[in-house]
Amino acid sequence: MSQHSPTYAVTIRLRYPDSPGAMGRITTAIGEADGAIGAVDIVSIAKNAISRDFTVNASDVDHGKRIVEHLRKVEGVEVVHVSDRVFLMHLGGKIEVLPKTPIKTRDDLSMAYTPGVARVCRSIADDPDASFALTIRQNTVAVVSDGSAVLGLGNIGPRAAMPVMEGKAMLFKEFAGVDAFPICLDTQDTEKIIETVRQLAPTFGGINLEDISAPRCIEIEQRLDEELEIPVFHDDQHGTAIVVLAGLMNALKRIGKQLADIRIVINGAGAAGTAICKLLMISGASNIIACDRNGALHADEAEADSIKQWLAENTNPSKVSGPLSTAIAGADVFIGVSAANVLTLDDIASMADDPIVFALANPDPEIDPRLATEHVRIMATGRSDFPNQINNVLCFPGLFRGVLNVRASTVNDEMKLAAAEAIAAVIPESDLLDDYIIPSVFDRRVATVVAKAVAEAAISTGVARRKTKASFDLA
Amino acid sequence: MSQHSPTYAVTIRLRYPDSPGAMGRITTAIGEADGAIGAVDIVSIAKNAISRDFTVNASDVDHGKRIVEHLRKVEGVEVVHVSDRVFLMHLGGKIEVLPKTPIKTRDDLSMAYTPGVARVCRSIADDPDASFALTIRQNTVAVVSDGSAVLGLGNIGPRAAMPVMEGKAMLFKEFAGVDAFPICLDTQDTEKIIETVRQLAPTFGGINLEDISAPRCIEIEQRLDEELEIPVFHDDQHGTAIVVLAGLMNALKRIGKQLADIRIVINGAGAAGTAICKLLMISGASNIIACDRNGALHADEAEADSIKQWLAENTNPSKVSGPLSTAIAGADVFIGVSAANVLTLDDIASMADDPIVFALANPDPEIDPRLATEHVRIMATGRSDFPNQINNVLCFPGLFRGVLNVRASTVNDEMKLAAAEAIAAVIPESDLLDDYIIPSVFDRRVATVVAKAVAEAAISTGVARRKTKASFDLA
Repeated sequence: MSQHSPTYAVTIRLRYPDSPGAMGRITTAIGEADGAIGAVDIVSIAKNAISRDFTVNASDVDHGKRIVEHLRKVEGVEVVHVSDRVFLMHLGGKIEVLPKTPIKTRDDLSMAYTPGVARVCRSIADDPDASFALTIRQNTVAVVSDGSAVLGLGNIGPRAAMPVMEGKAMLFKEFAGVDAFPICLDTQDTEKIIETVRQLAPTFGGINLEDISAPRCIEIEQRLDEELEIPVFHDDQHGTAIVVLAGLMNALKRIGKQLADIRIVINGAGAAGTAICKLLMISGASNIIACDRNGALHADEAEADSIKQWLAENTNPSKVSGPLSTAIAGADVFIGVSAANVLTLDDIASMADDPIVFALANPDPEIDPRLATEHVRIMATGRSDFPNQINNVLCFPGLFRGVLNVRASTVNDEMKLAAAEAIAAVIPESDLLDDYIIPSVFDRRVATVVAKAVAEAAISTGVARRKTKASFDLA
Repeated sequence: MSQHSPTYAVTIRLRYPDSPGAMGRITTAIGEADGAIGAVDIVSIAKNAISRDFTVNASDVDHGKRIVEHLRKVEGVEVVHVSDRVFLMHLGGKIEVLPKTPIKTRDDLSMAYTPGVARVCRSIADDPDASFALTIRQNTVAVVSDGSAVLGLGNIGPRAAMPVMEGKAMLFKEFAGVDAFPICLDTQDTEKIIETVRQLAPTFGGINLEDISAPRCIEIEQRLDEELEIPVFHDDQHGTAIVVLAGLMNALKRIGKQLADIRIVINGAGAAGTAICKLLMISGASNIIACDRNGALHADEAEADSIKQWLAENTNPSKVSGPLSTAIAGADVFIGVSAANVLTLDDIASMADDPIVFALANPDPEIDPRLATEHVRIMATGRSDFPNQINNVLCFPGLFRGVLNVRASTVNDEMKLAAAEAIAAVIPESDLLDDYIIPSVFDRRVATVVAKAVAEAAISTGVARRKTKASFDLA
């Protein structure tokens, strides 16, 4: 599914005599090499030569190189410099830490630092909960990873995971005004991760766990959330589950089926699959079959790990056994959080009427959407280049905004359900389409309504430290 | 030594009929209550009344309350609201985490986050040292405390220590463009602190330890610095020592004595006292007597803790014993890092000619500078309201700027000496005065020259990952 993408953009600096036809020869050459031209900027104009930066989207790294090689052959054109836009953007990191007020005078210094700060410190020493008002805890979450299960890249370690966590911190601020700081840990030991995050708690108002491999991530989240005074939320589990539920709610409205009546196959029995399963069950789903690569999990067979054992014991009421192709026959909904191309057109043909397929494996879905679209009623993926993108960005910024606004101590099921319902309700039922069951990630209404719903659910379930919040604004 | 200070500023909102004489009555009343008026801002003007915010510096919290009470007695004036400026400044914390580039479009998202970020992650997975270029490690330090020895407040715990660490993070950015993030740990156990900081290392380019009590701070720093790929620097020890050495170098120039020839008494045998002692010895001082509250430490007596034992064995070559008043007789220099009012005028009278007194206890020095000034040749304190302020802000921003610029793996003695010499050299010898031996904390030249000196020393001693840095600019 290769296509031109800013992910593979190169910025090529060319110097050439500024004569009629020069620009045409250059842009033609880029086109011949199948490059998609974006920005063209003048760098300098000298007596005999002009320098321009051409930003060109390619389809992969090698394609970018081929475009440059093709340009080298254009007569009179010198390739001065080639830079990779994505790497340029990452140089020195993607976030910075800034004072909210300047320190330009002695008065500034004496209020923000010694001696003035001492009164604030004493006030928190007298009442530790005041730290939620008088420090960055009021608005700050840690994005914590051990680098063990990063994107589709696997166990690449904490140093290599940092760019993802920095990106997540950008999204927190951009979409919901939440200050987030990436913390990548130099250990993949469950006990050491728990111990480290426990020690970090006084600094933060919440912990977003990220890209930690299963089944460790489940134990780490559970134990920390129970112990700490702040909420601990593993986004890969619950963020995914919340957005899937939101999409499924709207998809079912389109086809007039009820969650309680349908049969759902979840392919992928890891952390995300289990979290989706649990949230769907809380929402009323009663007939779910979870499959791993060996097929349907059921109570008659013992499973290797605790996650699969739980799924085997708590799903699949009819004890269906056999491969995915057997489990999916007659199913209303397929939800894949597994691997590329494990779903076939025959599988889809065996589903019930109006099949709903959420093929969420990244970057390549369980079935190519271009193949599947005409055989399903509603299709969703994790990709931005097809309709109905199931993306966690729809959830985590607003969810933590709500958590911080009311100083919640945990993220309970009611808050997760409230978030899913809020995301779904952003699109009025009359506006829903088979290709528009979930809001765009850039729909700025989403974070606000999620924050409000989550905060209200926290208050009504008694896990909010702050009982009234006049405004649910994003700041 | 109470005086009007922005540390105790209140902003008082008053509403009153805007008639001739009203402003005079209000400002007179503030003056009667000994309040010092700062900003006066109009809030609103209605038909019959005007609202203004009066910001008034008081000398302490109770004084601020008395000013407000006095204003309540002014006829026709309503006190609408009173706010404490220092607390207002701390609401919600003093720093924020911001994206360096906006995320407004799908292209932004696909470069800063998935899928584009994956290429950057893979590149770091292949070469973990690339994390120093492609993540916030390039410019970010952690300011880590356990809240066990905060300012003059003592063991107030990690939550209450946060405002100090946030203030420090502001100074890092403001003075040297370094991104610093406060981390307050929920443990005061040496092993747990070491273990936690060890796990945080992949996120940062350096660790600034802060306000951790002695003697634990020394072991924590040593072990972490040896183990980690990034430098670990306890500012209370070495930052203080560097600025003291800088001040002393310039003071000695004024009186024409040499470090190698003089006798120095250091009062306070904790972490700062030891670090000062070690750095002075490296610089050539050979006759130092360290005192604790029981008097001079010397090799004939066993000491309780490892710090004092080291001092007893490595200083005081003449084995002077007895109280401070005995040790100080004939000394050229007194350096106090101890407690208020432990030095007497008789002690100073017993010193050698041209006595140099650094009375650095905070907030109240070892001797009141107003008493001592006429009896000493050169006096320095930690306070901003007297000449010659010895303030760590002169060191840590520039020092870490230099460390990050060349990706140093440690802060060695040569780098500390280079920092001290750079601070001292900011004032040309011809400009030195007895009252001007150290630059102002707001002298913007300081961080730049410290960064350059520290980076060069790191390169020449082989602890820099990056051997050439074209520019030592602050960004």
